[in-house]
Amino acid sequence: MTDSDNLDLSRRRLLGAVGAAGAAGLVAGAAGGAGISAALSDDTAGAGGAPALSTVGSTAVMFHGKHQAGITTPLQSRGHLVAFDLAPGAGRKEAAALLRRWSATAKVLMAGKAPAEDTGIALDAGPSSLTVTFGFGRTFFDRTGLASRRPAELDPLPAFSADALDPRRSEGDLWVQIGADDALVAFHALRAVQKDAGDAARVRWQMNGFNRSAGATAKPMTARNLMGQVDGTGNPKPTDPDFDRRIFVPAGGAQEWMAGGSYAVVRRIRMLLDDWEKLPLDRQEKVIGRRKSDGAPLTGGSETTELALDKLGPDGKPVIPDNAHSRISAPEQNGGAAMLRRPFSFHDGIGPDGTPDAGLLFVCWQADPLRGFVPVQRKLDRGDALSAFIRHEASGLFAVPGGPAEGEYVGQRLLEA
Amino acid sequence: MTDSDNLDLSRRRLLGAVGAAGAAGLVAGAAGGAGISAALSDDTAGAGGAPALSTVGSTAVMFHGKHQAGITTPLQSRGHLVAFDLAPGAGRKEAAALLRRWSATAKVLMAGKAPAEDTGIALDAGPSSLTVTFGFGRTFFDRTGLASRRPAELDPLPAFSADALDPRRSEGDLWVQIGADDALVAFHALRAVQKDAGDAARVRWQMNGFNRSAGATAKPMTARNLMGQVDGTGNPKPTDPDFDRRIFVPAGGAQEWMAGGSYAVVRRIRMLLDDWEKLPLDRQEKVIGRRKSDGAPLTGGSETTELALDKLGPDGKPVIPDNAHSRISAPEQNGGAAMLRRPFSFHDGIGPDGTPDAGLLFVCWQADPLRGFVPVQRKLDRGDALSAFIRHEASGLFAVPGGPAEGEYVGQRLLEA
Repeated sequence: MTDSDNLDLSRRRLLGAVGAAGAAGLVAGAAGGAGISAALSDDTAGAGGAPALSTVGSTAVMFHGKHQAGITTPLQSRGHLVAFDLAPGAGRKEAAALLRRWSATAKVLMAGKAPAEDTGIALDAGPSSLTVTFGFGRTFFDRTGLASRRPAELDPLPAFSADALDPRRSEGDLWVQIGADDALVAFHALRAVQKDAGDAARVRWQMNGFNRSAGATAKPMTARNLMGQVDGTGNPKPTDPDFDRRIFVPAGGAQEWMAGGSYAVVRRIRMLLDDWEKLPLDRQEKVIGRRKSDGAPLTGGSETTELALDKLGPDGKPVIPDNAHSRISAPEQNGGAAMLRRPFSFHDGIGPDGTPDAGLLFVCWQADPLRGFVPVQRKLDRGDALSAFIRHEASGLFAVPGGPAEGEYVGQRLLEA
Repeated sequence: MTDSDNLDLSRRRLLGAVGAAGAAGLVAGAAGGAGISAALSDDTAGAGGAPALSTVGSTAVMFHGKHQAGITTPLQSRGHLVAFDLAPGAGRKEAAALLRRWSATAKVLMAGKAPAEDTGIALDAGPSSLTVTFGFGRTFFDRTGLASRRPAELDPLPAFSADALDPRRSEGDLWVQIGADDALVAFHALRAVQKDAGDAARVRWQMNGFNRSAGATAKPMTARNLMGQVDGTGNPKPTDPDFDRRIFVPAGGAQEWMAGGSYAVVRRIRMLLDDWEKLPLDRQEKVIGRRKSDGAPLTGGSETTELALDKLGPDGKPVIPDNAHSRISAPEQNGGAAMLRRPFSFHDGIGPDGTPDAGLLFVCWQADPLRGFVPVQRKLDRGDALSAFIRHEASGLFAVPGGPAEGEYVGQRLLEA
């Protein structure tokens, strides 16, 4: 499983131990990490007392594998989402060449190395948990003559009453998700991906996001969003027995090229923070159904305690209100629907209306959007108390194929079959 | 010098050693840090094997001191710049009350605590090197009846031929610089500062920036900008014998309330990255006069080697071209002018023209802009080879008073004298 290309990290002055990936596809530079099999140093090693790269910089994620990186990879502190449309005249051949270029670039960058004619933006930095993930939108298939291989799962999402979608920032032929624990590493990858597009594809939209920095909290915590809410508590875990079945497309389906892949629903969810922050804490907590301080249900316990949905308060009403976000979105209220939410927050300054242009770049992963995102969002759309404080401004649905085998590029099983 | 208020960090579940500030005003949570005098723990200490906050989260910067924080503080990975105008009808009294509120909030937040009626966005996180720095623009003084106390140093900067300034994103009555090593901690502070403004002041403009994450490089490196250049090599150092004289306003000047303060020049410098990245490496290096890989002068040596400005190449021309950015901006070419550059990079997605809306939120600090920024920018404006690849899109000049003593608020010596 060790990728020998990943071991030549000396350009980045990596001083530490680097090796084969563990189950999560991580190559950790910290002493004591699991799955470490090789130690590297370069001309700076041992000279001048230079400290080792912390794991912030030295952690590398494997490019090759059963699934693409950036789905079960831990949240990174910086992210870019970018959608492309194929250029007029570009078809399957140009798309295949583009995915080949992109895959080569992603592999090099995720290993902490520099591509040819590099911009130099990430010089000195380690791979910093960089992931680059590629997907195909519904419109891709007609434009490449591959309509017969378009998965039914890419059928348009239903319209939701609370949607205020901007089509110019929605959908797209191709989608790339970039994440890294260093802002310059992430930006470097974004520029490289844009450069690779060349004449074959044009940027349709591009969004920037962020999460908490590693080490900012005393212990690993579930993320908070910009409303101050613990966000992600109910996420399925890779150790759950049905995790793979719910998140990844099994082999033997209607579109074999998607085996090991997943479907990403991307929503730019604006938070109406000026309104939200005027709401007193106890009312915010009733909107969510959880305590703000630690994310525990209002019915008691800790963050991971199950919601006691039937529990009544002294007033005879449910402690977790009928329209509480956590009640409506609870998997047990949605036939066990499960999606893996893996968002970034966004903040693009002040919007034209004078309020903060900030919120959540919601990205969720599932084997089938009709069993993951759609049923939950349908119920939220009808009666979620949170709806008054958010606005879905953009939407995308993308087929993200399985990870490439050695020597393969992402999407090859679609484009060259 | 220990601020006892800084020691009550238990809300943030800080588990580590925290204590009195060293010369740089830092309160470090890492074992082995200098100036550490106290150890804290809380209800989570020792339970469940929770690891200590890394220094990313646990480092706190002192609010009180001779100078405000955020000037000599090491670059943080996230930053917000925000300018306010006083609301119609608001004068000196309202401004004084606002600066009192802001100072109280900044002190609480920089210590890693929560203000009253908190948004909760930074819950769980440590202070994360948060700094909040306050300044006054030229227009502040007329609006508050303090025209006689307006420093001559706030006279408008000269116009530069390469300027393409947007007045709506320039200047302002009041300016706040926020920096932190965690994105949610920085955003939390921004929201708190905006809330404190209440009816007294309205946001005029707001910009977001970033720098490399701590730990992304194997050893502390001079920052790189989004052009991939090492940026900040020639910066004066606090250990330089004339550092204080060049950066901070001495006592006994025309405006005594500015003693210990500094003047900030803020420029939103757009980088024309599509053009820049098309330039081959050797031509990029001639534009700058330094090697891209390590920032060393083209005349040889390492990053910190002095430029050999008289050295000629085999072609009889200077190795560092006459119009090279590093030659023109070199202090020795500008009568020893010195400013402390402390920028953030910015990236606001794709601009209306389809090119990246990215570049540098240039912030520089000096005791007198006419001896710091202005002479250097005048020379750059006439003949800098870099000019073709950048555009100054916004500008601000702010008087940043000295740090508050215990019990004082920022600007009190101006507003209550």
